[in-house]
Amino acid sequence: MIVQFSIVPLGKGPGIGDDVAKVLKIVDNSRLSYKITPMGTVVEGSWDDIMGLIKKCHSLVLKSGERVVTSITIDDRKRRKNMMEEKIRSVEKRLGKSLRK
Amino acid sequence: MIVQFSIVPLGKGPGIGDDVAKVLKIVDNSRLSYKITPMGTVVEGSWDDIMGLIKKCHSLVLKSGERVVTSITIDDRKRRKNMMEEKIRSVEKRLGKSLRK
Amino acid sequence: MIVQFSIVPLGKGPGIGDDVAKVLKIVDNSRLSYKITPMGTVVEGSWDDIMGLIKKCHSLVLKSGERVVTSITIDDRKRRKNMMEEKIRSVEKRLGKSLRK
Amino acid sequence: MIVQFSIVPLGKGPGIGDDVAKVLKIVDNSRLSYKITPMGTVVEGSWDDIMGLIKKCHSLVLKSGERVVTSITIDDRKRRKNMMEEKIRSVEKRLGKSLRK
Repeated sequence: MIVQFSIVPLGKGPGIGDDVAKVLKIVDNSRLSYKITPMGTVVEGSWDDIMGLIKKCHSLVLKSGERVVTSITIDDRKRRKNMMEEKIRSVEKRLGKSLRK
Repeated sequence: MIVQFSIVPLGKGPGIGDDVAKVLKIVDNSRLSYKITPMGTVVEGSWDDIMGLIKKCHSLVLKSGERVVTSITIDDRKRRKNMMEEKIRSVEKRLGKSLRK
Repeated sequence: MIVQFSIVPLGKGPGIGDDVAKVLKIVDNSRLSYKITPMGTVVEGSWDDIMGLIKKCHSLVLKSGERVVTSITIDDRKRRKNMMEEKIRSVEKRLGKSLRK
Repeated sequence: MIVQFSIVPLGKGPGIGDDVAKVLKIVDNSRLSYKITPMGTVVEGSWDDIMGLIKKCHSLVLKSGERVVTSITIDDRKRRKNMMEEKIRSVEKRLGKSLRK
């Protein structure tokens, strides 16, 4: 399954780059394949690996603050691997052109 | 923490009430406090209890289908209990009137 | 269609009840049917009426702050009215019991 | 502001690539700057331009089906332009390394 998540600390100022950097350091050090986007991080793996990772990130951001809002979207399709690459490739193939990524 | 989640099966027809009913039966039988809304279910509890519940629901819906999209939003605030009731009460108090729930 | 939305100001402290109250005052004064939940507001109506309402709320919250994250989920089903009530009623009917709302 | 959106048709089979392709054709032909990700499309522009684009995409997908669930997340920060590029660049700068995109 692939999962997008984003972690937003409340009560820390409008810029949240320090927290995002801490989160992405954890993601980058995990063994999961991932992609960062302007609105969150997409990871691919099993439920337990991914939710373990997100729990770790969420807890770390909450530790230095008062309140955290975390959003998670799961796309789980039977018998599919490498959905992260395949979903984009399949759409580009249908359109017969490369899109901005 | 309080968590809203919704589980949408793809490839099963436009009506998904049977799957929603199966999910809410699990939620209603859990020991977690919950509220159903027109767009999802809100539960209150610990990370592990809630994520265990959502994993159970997500897996059940996927079992009878091919693909499931699950959305989860977590609102986690230190030292707060009964956020589910308190958030609504606090806004009604500020407005000095009761709102439609 | 029915639409859930939530508006989260960043950089204003962990409590956001004042902004939520301002938003709900606008919603309550609109002619749209609505329901507040612990994680957002659900409204029913046309695309233009609902998006006009959310734009007004989003702009008001941004005016007194630096950054706002707004989440919107739309459930749009042909030939359906009163989805807000019907979705919950239909699940309770399937389960043969009343659920916590 | 930058906005991520995804449009999921219900009742059309587990694969939704044809609809995604139709949506991305509209996005690619608009004048808005955009990025596709494995979980949605991110666009940058004004409220009216972006919401007009999403309405067009949502309506097109609904036309050939019965039900559509559309998710939208808005990140709106005063006095910021090119947030789509800047958010990723700023995190990479903090970490002193390039991340997978």
